[in-house]
Amino acid sequence: MKVNQIDISKDMKVSDLVAQFEASDVLGAGRVARATNILANMIKDEDTNVFMSLGGPLIPGGMRNIVSQMIREGHVDLIVSSGANLTHDLLEAFGGAHYRDEGKDDEELNAEGIGRIADINVGSNDFEVFEKEINRLFEIISAKKPVISIQELIYEIGMLIDDENSFIATAARNNVPIFAPGIIDCMIGLQLWIFSQDHDFTISAAGDMPYLSDIVFGSEKVGGILLGGGLTKHYTLASNILNGGLDCAVQITMDRPEAGSLGGAPLEEAKSWSKAKCGSNLATVVGDVTIIFPLIYAAALDKI
Amino acid sequence: MKVNQIDISKDMKVSDLVAQFEASDVLGAGRVARATNILANMIKDEDTNVFMSLGGPLIPGGMRNIVSQMIREGHVDLIVSSGANLTHDLLEAFGGAHYRDEGKDDEELNAEGIGRIADINVGSNDFEVFEKEINRLFEIISAKKPVISIQELIYEIGMLIDDENSFIATAARNNVPIFAPGIIDCMIGLQLWIFSQDHDFTISAAGDMPYLSDIVFGSEKVGGILLGGGLTKHYTLASNILNGGLDCAVQITMDRPEAGSLGGAPLEEAKSWSKAKCGSNLATVVGDVTIIFPLIYAAALDKI
Amino acid sequence: MKVNQIDISKDMKVSDLVAQFEASDVLGAGRVARATNILANMIKDEDTNVFMSLGGPLIPGGMRNIVSQMIREGHVDLIVSSGANLTHDLLEAFGGAHYRDEGKDDEELNAEGIGRIADINVGSNDFEVFEKEINRLFEIISAKKPVISIQELIYEIGMLIDDENSFIATAARNNVPIFAPGIIDCMIGLQLWIFSQDHDFTISAAGDMPYLSDIVFGSEKVGGILLGGGLTKHYTLASNILNGGLDCAVQITMDRPEAGSLGGAPLEEAKSWSKAKCGSNLATVVGDVTIIFPLIYAAALDKI
Amino acid sequence: MKVNQIDISKDMKVSDLVAQFEASDVLGAGRVARATNILANMIKDEDTNVFMSLGGPLIPGGMRNIVSQMIREGHVDLIVSSGANLTHDLLEAFGGAHYRDEGKDDEELNAEGIGRIADINVGSNDFEVFEKEINRLFEIISAKKPVISIQELIYEIGMLIDDENSFIATAARNNVPIFAPGIIDCMIGLQLWIFSQDHDFTISAAGDMPYLSDIVFGSEKVGGILLGGGLTKHYTLASNILNGGLDCAVQITMDRPEAGSLGGAPLEEAKSWSKAKCGSNLATVVGDVTIIFPLIYAAALDKI
Repeated sequence: MKVNQIDISKDMKVSDLVAQFEASDVLGAGRVARATNILANMIKDEDTNVFMSLGGPLIPGGMRNIVSQMIREGHVDLIVSSGANLTHDLLEAFGGAHYRDEGKDDEELNAEGIGRIADINVGSNDFEVFEKEINRLFEIISAKKPVISIQELIYEIGMLIDDENSFIATAARNNVPIFAPGIIDCMIGLQLWIFSQDHDFTISAAGDMPYLSDIVFGSEKVGGILLGGGLTKHYTLASNILNGGLDCAVQITMDRPEAGSLGGAPLEEAKSWSKAKCGSNLATVVGDVTIIFPLIYAAALDKI
Repeated sequence: MKVNQIDISKDMKVSDLVAQFEASDVLGAGRVARATNILANMIKDEDTNVFMSLGGPLIPGGMRNIVSQMIREGHVDLIVSSGANLTHDLLEAFGGAHYRDEGKDDEELNAEGIGRIADINVGSNDFEVFEKEINRLFEIISAKKPVISIQELIYEIGMLIDDENSFIATAARNNVPIFAPGIIDCMIGLQLWIFSQDHDFTISAAGDMPYLSDIVFGSEKVGGILLGGGLTKHYTLASNILNGGLDCAVQITMDRPEAGSLGGAPLEEAKSWSKAKCGSNLATVVGDVTIIFPLIYAAALDKI
Repeated sequence: MKVNQIDISKDMKVSDLVAQFEASDVLGAGRVARATNILANMIKDEDTNVFMSLGGPLIPGGMRNIVSQMIREGHVDLIVSSGANLTHDLLEAFGGAHYRDEGKDDEELNAEGIGRIADINVGSNDFEVFEKEINRLFEIISAKKPVISIQELIYEIGMLIDDENSFIATAARNNVPIFAPGIIDCMIGLQLWIFSQDHDFTISAAGDMPYLSDIVFGSEKVGGILLGGGLTKHYTLASNILNGGLDCAVQITMDRPEAGSLGGAPLEEAKSWSKAKCGSNLATVVGDVTIIFPLIYAAALDKI
Repeated sequence: MKVNQIDISKDMKVSDLVAQFEASDVLGAGRVARATNILANMIKDEDTNVFMSLGGPLIPGGMRNIVSQMIREGHVDLIVSSGANLTHDLLEAFGGAHYRDEGKDDEELNAEGIGRIADINVGSNDFEVFEKEINRLFEIISAKKPVISIQELIYEIGMLIDDENSFIATAARNNVPIFAPGIIDCMIGLQLWIFSQDHDFTISAAGDMPYLSDIVFGSEKVGGILLGGGLTKHYTLASNILNGGLDCAVQITMDRPEAGSLGGAPLEEAKSWSKAKCGSNLATVVGDVTIIFPLIYAAALDKI
């Protein structure tokens, strides 16, 4: 297939740009075009359940409304999130915010009570509100369910939050389950532990497996949207091992493959493990999720 | 400080090479030299507890004996491991092995029952033995402790294994606790869930926090050895937030910092969050752990 | 400044997407937005001469029409190209083409006379036409100018080519000089040498410096668009040292900074060398040029 | 082949460490072991001419003595260098030095007359001495040879320098030719141009091709050591196209392959172009040259 040169014009739509990428079909541009097609097809196909994993600082980095929009529009059916993305979603739901870093030294930031994630800042005052609020929610939830799975906990939190941009709240109201196998490793996990010291509240680590496996077995086909991450990506892939693997998937990552970490592994590797089906349609885009995913999703919207 | 040129000679020791790197002190060579000094100092200092995190395919990739040696020699006091590294340690303890990939296509590998991790292969026959054996251990452990934390579970497994190269066995016998906040996301986790469906066996997700926090508060100083990974690195850093952060640390990673994922974040960022102390001595080496860590540890051994 | 969440909608324009990135302003999305503003401003400002460097496989990778369009619209005033990008522009001008790789082994490709650049293929038959045609042009040019500078040679070639999509032809007809300090290292260079063995034709390596320095000194301000590359990026930066450095610049690269290669160096480093002015406005986007540059340029077009 | 676990011991030699890597044979450690074997074999084999390319800041970064040692010991037969590595070799030969960066802002460094390369600093006073000295050499050389090729120029400079650690001086005295196709793009090139404005001194860009092609055709076999770089790597590969390609090669780079730049391309790609022979033995190590090359070379010395 001949490589066509890319043409750019004033006022062009995102989907026109990706159509140009598709005509070129090579290097990064080609990867974006193929990922867009796979994404559009998995969303359009009513027989495909869409699983999405959220690794890296996606919520602090501006992806919160997109995730909520995808849930509302029925474009995603199941989410696997890092604990941090849940924490930062709640931090905003409780009135907090993220700020652009101004280049201060990390010791200065520490003195001012500011935590840094690359070029994003978060203030300790917002974390104080977070602590107060999350404990208030734990009180309510533990009274109702003293033993709870992680997914159920996130669902209950979501139902108690009133923020239409919160992806936790939106997911709860739209029956999109959120799994978070590493939830212990975030501010929610820390507060959970402190709370459980003087309350009867137990989080079952393996408690979500029956529900997750029911969803996998109940899915005619499964598509994967794997955004950054190691644990969240692997959990999404591995949950599908029970049913022969994903039918199609896109991943976006900056990690490289040679050192063997799961985060940087090519999706093809998943076929050897039956985490993706032999013959499945897979695309990896090497790039920053905050650039690539909005680009791909906007282009896919015009194909649905 | 002037950059000295590096001199190489026949029969030179690893520690001589790193001494040459120290005289140069710039680029990657300088990073290796500084990391070696920090590592040697944290091991030598009796007031420093050494926490090590194991992310990426370290056990399949040849780091198993080094981790066990470090435990035996008292060079590490606490480990945070990915589930996969635990699984692959047990796979070898149960008689299995890892093999060098021969370049077959992933669909071919699938047909032959071989899983691929970069250029490493694992056979499904070894996983079948793993399943049988891990379930045998679960029987014994669940009879003794029907409710158990993750660290306790790994300890009990370690005490039941007879393989002097297993880091799980060696850690159990040397009172080095192993934490694994993401254990659910690996073959052990999968088997745990299947086992728990018809056995009374509950893994408490937050159950390790009291013990971990006791260790942190009981440490005069804490040093970190952060090998690859996202979750395992973060959990190691975050556990120290309770006591003001790490006093010194080295990390080895191929992930880049710009996209904001924790795995690629510079250690300095941890200071803003009080996960590393202001004034702490920190070094990042950008490179493949299987090359860099043996190099650094061999050089550090000559300084202890 | 608060990080705003990114909103995506059906039928959105590229410039709307980048406006959303600007409201977020962090991570990769923020870098894209800042680069777009710098690019739009340098193009709009009549006192700024725009220098663009072309490294990596940009012409085989689909950027040919964009470069030609920028020349025609007066959006670029000077180009520094790798020899390979010149060669591949001529290969298409002489009727050849680039093709998408189909995954064959490199030894198979060799047997079929196909050269591979990542996932792009080029056929030896097209290189045979290239050889015949470039030698025809050398005959004409050497008869006119037996001693010639690299820039003059490229100009003369451009005037003899009839392909409106060729950036060499378009540049020649629009008085945009193309410099190529490494031209010897490509198929044009190889043919030049063979031709010069039995023809009186000498290429002066330093012959372009007076003209280049005149342009630099004659520029009120200079903006840089640095796409990939090591030599081409450095030559563009270094040519401005004579006049205090670039006034503004964007670079797009996948190379990392730690190992110290110029290709991966942050643009800020150029300030220390007076290759960029202190106070200059600089943005680096870490990403694949074939994705990022069309995105940025399309968004900039709506701001001009 | 089974992956063996790596064992580390006190006082171990570099070659013992690499022997451990060889027993593991996977991930980065395996790449280092394979590269060491290829390097040792190409040095040992009297029928193999060894071509080495020097890209990235190798001389400022501590590799100067190693390159000179390799020349003296007959371990390298031909060098392709970036202009910058030549410049920095001369800067030291003329009494200058490189210094470790202390973390100042680039605008501060500029005010102090210090140029920065990653974490390396160079002072403008040393460049002033460089300018005076290089012009003194140009006077002598131009009087002798008013028209000169790049390789001849570097040779003549080398013969006039009295510094046993200078790789230019060492190469000249040991008949190891140094090619530098991009020499115009460095401080030597800038001074050349200024000098040529009022002196009769012409550098022929294509003048080295006959000599280089004679060496290639006169080599029974050619081995490549490709350290960093884009242009220098490509020129080394491409010069061998005339004779069917390299017979064996190692490359060390941090650049990634997906975006298609030559610097990050896998060596296998060179087979499709006949720049490496089909069946040739090739190894790529992904890593920082200043760590990896001393490690590999020290280990190879024990095998020769």
